[in-house]
Amino acid sequence: MISDNKSSEELYRSACDVLTGGVSRNTVYRKPFPHYAGKASGCYITDVDGTERIDFANNMAALIHGHAHPAIVAAVYEQLQKGTAYTLASEIEVAFAQLMCRRVKGFEKIRFVNSGTEAVMAMIKASRAFTGRPKIAKAEGTYHGTYDFAEVSQVANPSNWGETDHPNSVPLAYGTPKEVLDNVVIFPFNDIERTLAILDNQADRIACVLIDPVPHRVGLMPANDDFIEALYAWTRKNGALLVFDEVVTFRVGYGGAQERYKITPDMTALGKIIGGGFPVGAIAGRNEIMKVFDPRETPLLFPNSGTFSANPITMTAGYVAMDLFDTEAVTKLNTLTAETIRRIEEVIRLADVPVSITGAGSMFRFHLTPVPPATYREAYQTKEAIAVINELLDYLYFRERILMINTFACMFSTVMTTKETDRLCEGLHRAFTELKPKINAIQKK
Amino acid sequence: MISDNKSSEELYRSACDVLTGGVSRNTVYRKPFPHYAGKASGCYITDVDGTERIDFANNMAALIHGHAHPAIVAAVYEQLQKGTAYTLASEIEVAFAQLMCRRVKGFEKIRFVNSGTEAVMAMIKASRAFTGRPKIAKAEGTYHGTYDFAEVSQVANPSNWGETDHPNSVPLAYGTPKEVLDNVVIFPFNDIERTLAILDNQADRIACVLIDPVPHRVGLMPANDDFIEALYAWTRKNGALLVFDEVVTFRVGYGGAQERYKITPDMTALGKIIGGGFPVGAIAGRNEIMKVFDPRETPLLFPNSGTFSANPITMTAGYVAMDLFDTEAVTKLNTLTAETIRRIEEVIRLADVPVSITGAGSMFRFHLTPVPPATYREAYQTKEAIAVINELLDYLYFRERILMINTFACMFSTVMTTKETDRLCEGLHRAFTELKPKINAIQKK
Repeated sequence: MISDNKSSEELYRSACDVLTGGVSRNTVYRKPFPHYAGKASGCYITDVDGTERIDFANNMAALIHGHAHPAIVAAVYEQLQKGTAYTLASEIEVAFAQLMCRRVKGFEKIRFVNSGTEAVMAMIKASRAFTGRPKIAKAEGTYHGTYDFAEVSQVANPSNWGETDHPNSVPLAYGTPKEVLDNVVIFPFNDIERTLAILDNQADRIACVLIDPVPHRVGLMPANDDFIEALYAWTRKNGALLVFDEVVTFRVGYGGAQERYKITPDMTALGKIIGGGFPVGAIAGRNEIMKVFDPRETPLLFPNSGTFSANPITMTAGYVAMDLFDTEAVTKLNTLTAETIRRIEEVIRLADVPVSITGAGSMFRFHLTPVPPATYREAYQTKEAIAVINELLDYLYFRERILMINTFACMFSTVMTTKETDRLCEGLHRAFTELKPKINAIQKK
Repeated sequence: MISDNKSSEELYRSACDVLTGGVSRNTVYRKPFPHYAGKASGCYITDVDGTERIDFANNMAALIHGHAHPAIVAAVYEQLQKGTAYTLASEIEVAFAQLMCRRVKGFEKIRFVNSGTEAVMAMIKASRAFTGRPKIAKAEGTYHGTYDFAEVSQVANPSNWGETDHPNSVPLAYGTPKEVLDNVVIFPFNDIERTLAILDNQADRIACVLIDPVPHRVGLMPANDDFIEALYAWTRKNGALLVFDEVVTFRVGYGGAQERYKITPDMTALGKIIGGGFPVGAIAGRNEIMKVFDPRETPLLFPNSGTFSANPITMTAGYVAMDLFDTEAVTKLNTLTAETIRRIEEVIRLADVPVSITGAGSMFRFHLTPVPPATYREAYQTKEAIAVINELLDYLYFRERILMINTFACMFSTVMTTKETDRLCEGLHRAFTELKPKINAIQKK
């Protein structure tokens, strides 16, 4: 394999001299060396050694129309010649804000930032500013970007996660101040009874309950309707906010994953697909709460700015991407994904392997368990399971020329057709068959 | 004036329905309504009502080559057609990292993120991860982005800043947890004796001393050599790191503002100009410390990733921008700026107004005081002074067609010539003459 990837290997050797660990994003790292993209178009990505693969990762779910969509390229090129960032506002940020607010019931006002990390951080700070309370509550195992409060218990493991009745606040980064942990309340996802008991314990200190409605790292299972409704009721009763992290999940429906619930979250953090391939984040929500950002208010409760926030390139690409992702496009994409999942379930049955699938909309994730996990702790993978998953991913990547997300997940794009999903099903069939003994061995442990 | 800016006024009216306060960045807000950029090229920016202005703001100091530089446009367009973001690494991130590490002595390794805010946050978290300590120390009045720990005492004022011997930790946003404030030690900029006494008090708890070497909000006066050397010596003695925020100041010299000091900071946060007009941030520094990010290490002390980090568009634009900003370009730009400042000082003398200038390299800021302020508290502006500054800025903006940063500061770009600086000097002369009585009135208070 190494001889096939000489250019990537050489690039990585140079990279290690100047980039820490040779990478700027741990997600692109793979052993013994990461691969380098040469070009990408539609649902195909070609590495610097000339190998073309189907891209089911779509930059960690961020590309809803695949790569270099002609309409986005054309619009961005036009803006590029007029400048990429100003100390003035721009017309396109208004048009894009209108499009987003028309799109989702709960988006009375929106504000753009530069990344999902910035969006979640601003949403948490806005919750504190609105309520005057210091704490946030979040589900064990959820990823919400790199703000340290949002990061607590993201990778809790059996050695440190504690009792399910009272999950510990586990730091992600070494050196996280103890006071950060103390200000984050951890509850078990989709577990109403335990969650409400935990929240009740801190009722008057919680600014917001933060929820990813289909949390990838928890296991990519949707939040149950009754769980969301219980959280909503709890927050109404206790003067807290219910805020959604839809950075990943906005792709799930025309109005995000939130459209399936009866309730409307107070605020939502966005990112990924709404940037049309460019760095983006946003916070949207209720007028009354969003007012904490309003520079015309005295006192201004939450002063917030950003050099590249709402830059006209991101706004242009995002506008075109979201305009193209209309109800018809959403339905078509989700239908293709659902059909593919059904076909893969048939593949799993034929290969006779203990594999299950979770997901929503255009995203799904594989688990090496016969029954889909229901909680973070059930979905938690042993080192042995991760090793087999990496073998499966390598098989698919090298033999089948299929790129997935390294959690063994796929994120579809609107430019995919049955040509690509055929290859996915066939590739998975061969991968599961080839690695069946190893997959089975995990179950026996 | 309103009739001249009808399109902006109408856009803002629509914006208020969908964007909180009608803007995504408070910096672009102006009363009674912000203006909207139509297009920009080189050092000129034209609003949607067709008025062209010289742009001395350069997107809050982020554009070193002005707008739509042909070399950047061409390179970005080429990359645009190959994709804007991948789940693989890219060759250009290695080339750009090499260029940056060759450029600055202290940059042994670099890691890219999406904004200056993300860079400072990652640098602080890396400092904690490396030292295992929770606290940071920062200078009163400094702006370091929107991470709440970095934001403490950014807008301290006489009613809450406390004694100079022990400045208070003043929250920026309402609802900032008390524990955040407790973990930030505030010292007075450029005041060695008081600063060391304050640091000594917390010696074994401080992970890093965070310094902007020419802090804009403090007053845009450079950190003195002996102050930086004293901080460096203190950090060596006490097991803490000395980290620089050069998000703004990297434009000051070929190797940033840090190149003038005898010492080398342990880490540096970057942003603004290194993105070539696209969202960017970076952390660079000592190998040993940067290792906290290395995904090959076990345990990995500081897991960090980002969907758009090191995306090939930003890397491409940044590479071209920094390659063009070579020693010759830096010298030429800084010489033009220094000559302009000398001419403006002559203008100030002729207009006979109590105005002074601070700055470094290609940036400078005006103060309505006869002698430049030496500290944040000296530079602190009363409401009356701010009102006169806003009148001056309006005069320059509307009558002279000159756009500045709303702190009354200019950030030059390499595409400027004496044509633009002539207009600046003449415009300032008229503005100072016109508003002389009001400028004088402030002094008498």
